[in-house]
Amino acid sequence: MDSCVTAAAAIKDGYQPVFLHINYGQRTESRELTAFNEIADYYQVERKLVVDISHLADIGASCLTDENIEVPAADLENEDIPISYVPFRNANILSAAVSWAEVIGAEAIYFGAVEDDSSGYPDCRRSFFDAFERAIDRGTKPRTKIKIITPLINLSKKEIVEKGIALNAPLHFTWSCYKNEDVPCGECDSCALRARGFDQAGVRDPIIN
Amino acid sequence: MDSCVTAAAAIKDGYQPVFLHINYGQRTESRELTAFNEIADYYQVERKLVVDISHLADIGASCLTDENIEVPAADLENEDIPISYVPFRNANILSAAVSWAEVIGAEAIYFGAVEDDSSGYPDCRRSFFDAFERAIDRGTKPRTKIKIITPLINLSKKEIVEKGIALNAPLHFTWSCYKNEDVPCGECDSCALRARGFDQAGVRDPIIN
Repeated sequence: MDSCVTAAAAIKDGYQPVFLHINYGQRTESRELTAFNEIADYYQVERKLVVDISHLADIGASCLTDENIEVPAADLENEDIPISYVPFRNANILSAAVSWAEVIGAEAIYFGAVEDDSSGYPDCRRSFFDAFERAIDRGTKPRTKIKIITPLINLSKKEIVEKGIALNAPLHFTWSCYKNEDVPCGECDSCALRARGFDQAGVRDPIIN
Repeated sequence: MDSCVTAAAAIKDGYQPVFLHINYGQRTESRELTAFNEIADYYQVERKLVVDISHLADIGASCLTDENIEVPAADLENEDIPISYVPFRNANILSAAVSWAEVIGAEAIYFGAVEDDSSGYPDCRRSFFDAFERAIDRGTKPRTKIKIITPLINLSKKEIVEKGIALNAPLHFTWSCYKNEDVPCGECDSCALRARGFDQAGVRDPIIN
């Protein structure tokens, strides 16, 4: 959902987007790829790239990528970094995105990270993206200028739902559950955050029957 | 050769190393993997990881990964960024390395980048590694502390050869050619830099018959 609303924001900002899907060995990769393709079709995005960084699953240590670690029930009050954290995942994603962006001459990477109303992953903080932008500036050709734009970073899930509806984003194609690929489990952190967002926005989640 | 001397430096510094090999779709990947395993055996390194980021070859734009772009003859006077530059490659490598380092609790990543006596890749500058270190600090768990150590960054190839010999590094197992996997072509930038280094050090290159 965050990626979808982020894509809608990029289009609103006047960009002609290309879409990048990442397989990092997550349990729900296949379902997410379906969502990726449906959202790309909705926006008539012609240029798509699927990148496999499933070495993150080999490295392990996250319940999202390791079948031996159970996806825990939601605990939105937890202030520790949860077991769903995939170590330095977003740097791996951004690095691939920057390589592609530099070759095709893209000016911006839109990333649907959420800092506040989230699970507290360190690589979702704006200060991380600021530092990474500096690394892009130093590590690419002099003429390459790539911004990282995070339009949701300070929004609550309620505000993300509202923004998605305002932008006419196809939320019915999105998938958030960490655990299942058929029916959202309703119990993981991601399902809980999504449910709270729709609830607070006073809107029915279109993927829940 | 740079990676090998860097490993020797890490051991000299008192670290117990683990070895990471990266397949980024380079022409000489198979030969480099052989070198990786031989050097790991030499140093009795038990923990090794091979990571595939060959999406960099799909993204293309470099003669190292795209068979349709010829590896040019060496031009060490060229001040532009050469066609062998693989866009933002080192960020992709570092991101995987950091993910692994965070999980196993490693304190440092040794990286054999050379800034001065090199082909002029932007992602080999120390200022890039400094910026990336900041991104590591912001994008990983609070208790994670990972330094990027680049012991060769300001050395010439001559000094790298001398350092390798002083540290008893197994230079006979190393491979530098961008083009061939059997006999070094002797013509690419990497062969030319290596030959100049051995020549200036007054030492015979053990991989040249």
